[in-house]
Amino acid sequence: MNPRRAAYTQARTITLADAEIAPPAPGQVRIDVAYTGICGTDLHIFHGDMDARVSTPAVLGHEMSGRIAAIGDGVEGHEVGDPVTVMPLSWCGTCPACRSGHSHICHNLVFLGIDAPGSMQTSWTVPASTLVKLPENLPLDHAALVEPTAVAIHDVTRAGLEAGEHALVVGAGPIGVLIGLVARRAGAKVMLVEPDPHRRALAEKLGLHVLDPASVDVTEQVTRWSGGAGAAVAFEVSGAAAGVTTAVDALATRGRLVQVAIHARPREVNLHRFFWRELTLIGARLYERADFEAAARLLADGEIPAAALISRTEPLESAADAFSALESGSGIMKVLVDCAGGHR
Amino acid sequence: MNPRRAAYTQARTITLADAEIAPPAPGQVRIDVAYTGICGTDLHIFHGDMDARVSTPAVLGHEMSGRIAAIGDGVEGHEVGDPVTVMPLSWCGTCPACRSGHSHICHNLVFLGIDAPGSMQTSWTVPASTLVKLPENLPLDHAALVEPTAVAIHDVTRAGLEAGEHALVVGAGPIGVLIGLVARRAGAKVMLVEPDPHRRALAEKLGLHVLDPASVDVTEQVTRWSGGAGAAVAFEVSGAAAGVTTAVDALATRGRLVQVAIHARPREVNLHRFFWRELTLIGARLYERADFEAAARLLADGEIPAAALISRTEPLESAADAFSALESGSGIMKVLVDCAGGHR
Repeated sequence: MNPRRAAYTQARTITLADAEIAPPAPGQVRIDVAYTGICGTDLHIFHGDMDARVSTPAVLGHEMSGRIAAIGDGVEGHEVGDPVTVMPLSWCGTCPACRSGHSHICHNLVFLGIDAPGSMQTSWTVPASTLVKLPENLPLDHAALVEPTAVAIHDVTRAGLEAGEHALVVGAGPIGVLIGLVARRAGAKVMLVEPDPHRRALAEKLGLHVLDPASVDVTEQVTRWSGGAGAAVAFEVSGAAAGVTTAVDALATRGRLVQVAIHARPREVNLHRFFWRELTLIGARLYERADFEAAARLLADGEIPAAALISRTEPLESAADAFSALESGSGIMKVLVDCAGGHR
Repeated sequence: MNPRRAAYTQARTITLADAEIAPPAPGQVRIDVAYTGICGTDLHIFHGDMDARVSTPAVLGHEMSGRIAAIGDGVEGHEVGDPVTVMPLSWCGTCPACRSGHSHICHNLVFLGIDAPGSMQTSWTVPASTLVKLPENLPLDHAALVEPTAVAIHDVTRAGLEAGEHALVVGAGPIGVLIGLVARRAGAKVMLVEPDPHRRALAEKLGLHVLDPASVDVTEQVTRWSGGAGAAVAFEVSGAAAGVTTAVDALATRGRLVQVAIHARPREVNLHRFFWRELTLIGARLYERADFEAAARLLADGEIPAAALISRTEPLESAADAFSALESGSGIMKVLVDCAGGHR
């Protein structure tokens, strides 16, 4: 198969094209991409909602796996054939966030796959500093879930979640379910809230408890479930105004609300309850390297049931169909694009 | 002077009456009250805004000082004549907040001076467990500021404020100024924001830097002041919607916003910025015993310039005037009621 790439060119349009393969520059590595997952942000771009940020044609994709194909000068510690994923962040090193040790939320962050070409192509060249080695026993399709799992691990870490605590996850899309699984493995008691019946069914198949906010009083249920105290931690993953209210109302005294979802508009927040119960709201974005490495281990150890989360895999030639599948079906959890064309 | 008490009877009405003096019951102590300060909550009650919570006639007052006059059976560690203040909280000991060690925000909290009789009387009988001993070198009028100073110490503690950090205080009323003074003493660089010129002038007299939000761009000023990073901590003490926005916008990456003021209505909060910059919002209410004891020490050591904060002192007979003075004048910081009638 010739090297190919799938690029977003305009709203609702993904175009296939031949790609040039150049040797990696010093400090870079070329990867033969195996799989690329599609996330909610990719779907936003596909809808044309992020045209102000994205330069077209734009090769999307930042949830990926592959093997090193070529190594540039000065790169050490890697070999051709190594299975890898990429932590798709490039930071400036000089802004206030970088100077205070939070380079993952650098003020000038370049996100590979949004602000620079991504992995939805047969061959991807990236700075060697972004590589994260994968365990050999981790199947490469499962490895495409390392990135979203790292998000979930970062969220649980930001919460300071402790074993035995009651954790409520508002929203059972891919990130919500991954948070639920990571929180459960951390020893927490986990409950999810999700209005969509297909998503509820999938989460329940994974052994997670899920409430339907349309049919029960979530606050009342969580209060009872937690022995009258309320949830020690709530993760707001819905992005909806109602999700914020649900999370705030369900928290125990001194409870922590982790804000995971993107709210494009300001939301009404019951600040009186934050005062009255001494609650804490914690913003959580992306991940750090330790989160990525922990995610790879969790997936390799089978602690995250990747196969059950992958709803569908489309070949690179049908990348546009992969986007359509993700947006159409509420029964869809994670859609992968097979970028290797069977030549693994 | 006969024992007297000032009681709130209906909106805008404080009535003086004779009081009965009974010996303290077992576990209780009777205090000869010296001074009682009036706070914003007292003013709300005076305006009739809390009639649903307050049973009339209601003796208000919870910022106080005095000397022990009589001791009930079973009380140890106290002597008649000891200078004391009262931490005006009575908790149930069995609710989820109490069981998790946060009894100061007990779900069934009884607040002396709101839910039970307060100190705006010549003689006040309270559970001995609420007593906080005062240093002998602390003047009793200054000691009436222990309670609001304890609030400020609790807020600064909740922030986890560290020496060298930039702290913004939004609102320069009594609590805002006390937070500024406590934060400065903790080694922080402190800036206040206050639209009222009289309050700005008073804060500046105490050596605090104050911005007028009507004449400068607060975010821009704070960014410059903090070397481009933004404030590490912001205290929202204004209770206004605009104050929340100011505090959120001024914060650095991973900055902490301490919610001190009461917002009766939900407020629009830029949750995207909490996500993007990984900010934290921390609710802070009241105080714990350690905060009270630290407040008494700070005042005794002269670290809090109490004299400069006390704008006016009225005798108990003129308690109604004290309320009027507080509500009328923006140049007023703290108003005390002298409950001893000069018989100290």
